[in-house]
Amino acid sequence: MANSPSGDSAVDRVVRVLDTFTADRTVQTASEIGRRAGLPSSTAHRIVDGLVHSGLLERDDANRIRLGMRLWELALRGSHALRLRQAALPSMETVQARVREHTQLAVLEHDEALFLERLSHPDAGANITRIAGRLPLHASSSGLVLLAYAENEVRERVLARPLRALSADTVTDPDSLRRLLAGIRQRGHVVAPGSIETVSTGVAVPVRQNGAVIAALSVVLPRDAPTIDALTTLMAAARRVQKALNRSRD
Amino acid sequence: MANSPSGDSAVDRVVRVLDTFTADRTVQTASEIGRRAGLPSSTAHRIVDGLVHSGLLERDDANRIRLGMRLWELALRGSHALRLRQAALPSMETVQARVREHTQLAVLEHDEALFLERLSHPDAGANITRIAGRLPLHASSSGLVLLAYAENEVRERVLARPLRALSADTVTDPDSLRRLLAGIRQRGHVVAPGSIETVSTGVAVPVRQNGAVIAALSVVLPRDAPTIDALTTLMAAARRVQKALNRSRD
Repeated sequence: MANSPSGDSAVDRVVRVLDTFTADRTVQTASEIGRRAGLPSSTAHRIVDGLVHSGLLERDDANRIRLGMRLWELALRGSHALRLRQAALPSMETVQARVREHTQLAVLEHDEALFLERLSHPDAGANITRIAGRLPLHASSSGLVLLAYAENEVRERVLARPLRALSADTVTDPDSLRRLLAGIRQRGHVVAPGSIETVSTGVAVPVRQNGAVIAALSVVLPRDAPTIDALTTLMAAARRVQKALNRSRD
Repeated sequence: MANSPSGDSAVDRVVRVLDTFTADRTVQTASEIGRRAGLPSSTAHRIVDGLVHSGLLERDDANRIRLGMRLWELALRGSHALRLRQAALPSMETVQARVREHTQLAVLEHDEALFLERLSHPDAGANITRIAGRLPLHASSSGLVLLAYAENEVRERVLARPLRALSADTVTDPDSLRRLLAGIRQRGHVVAPGSIETVSTGVAVPVRQNGAVIAALSVVLPRDAPTIDALTTLMAAARRVQKALNRSRD
């Protein structure tokens, strides 16, 4: 791939263009994309035209650009995320039917918790997560489980950084976090009151494949709700997901 | 973006690389990708390296390549597909709980039916569709609904092509299809016995947004199962999806 004068590759520029789309910014003009991607206008227009031609982006009647169905199709067709999500969905539905709160599946991705699926009950309370959204590992129940079972290298890298508090209850002191993570590994679950929002308590358990923790399954409860029923439901669900993963090929 | 000697752009080459991944081929070597994408080996390796660097592809311990979580994240984060699917999921769960068979959501994409979601009941029968999979418009109940309400131009283009029979019951004669499609528009639904597989009957209804049909909701029943309950359940679900779409922003 040809490199630009600034040294970034064509692949980088395509990624930068795609990266300007967010859950809150789903439609943009080519000029806005260029500005947000930090690309010269002519370059941005050329890349956008190419991506529209291939179907990865779509142009609407008002000449505005949005992500194309073709990108969605390419990303999902052979994706590990989809297989994991398909293996987990029936068990997540069972959790949601029983607990009647938000039910989520997250994986560790570039030192953050990436949410692959979220089922929301109509009566459920506050919840900050979104599908394909991310949260810091130290500040969500799913993230804490993923961090507890992550490779040492990942855990130490995350703990060495400044850790931001999302609420008054977020644990940000590295030594306190290390003790919290050791407790998670010992008990096999976490109950994290208020670590993201003071009104909620996250409850999360690990999902294993071939012995390794590959995901976290969680529910978000109102802050002072009892957690035991949610916990046993989640643990049973995690075991069913593990069985489903063993049945599906990788 | 620089064009290669053969005239295809860097964006095209990236798409061709991503396009070699399918639901049945989720892990490949860089050389296999190059061969399947019709790219010189050095070009393929360079693009794969760039895509791995950006996270759109991932390399496993055995140096094999698969689609990356980052591609999944980019594709879903601002996607119309995800918003449509999120608006439809609760209603699809209701359909599945009641009908206890495969429940599907499809959109018209490049003259084919593209399946955005599929819920499968453990006891449900045969079903050829997959999430992010495609089926011909004339040979699936979802596709027939989408074709019935498509723009004239799309309908005539599809009918002008040779239409392949997927089973002995697939309607492939253009005049018979035109009558079938007119009937769908009149009744607002389709019951398509055996059009894909002789053992199954597809039942599908349109989902509208601002008056236009934007998707099809369907179930796959055993060939000779009664269809009335499935049909009324689907129609009620389609109305709920329409309400949810009107509540969500575009």
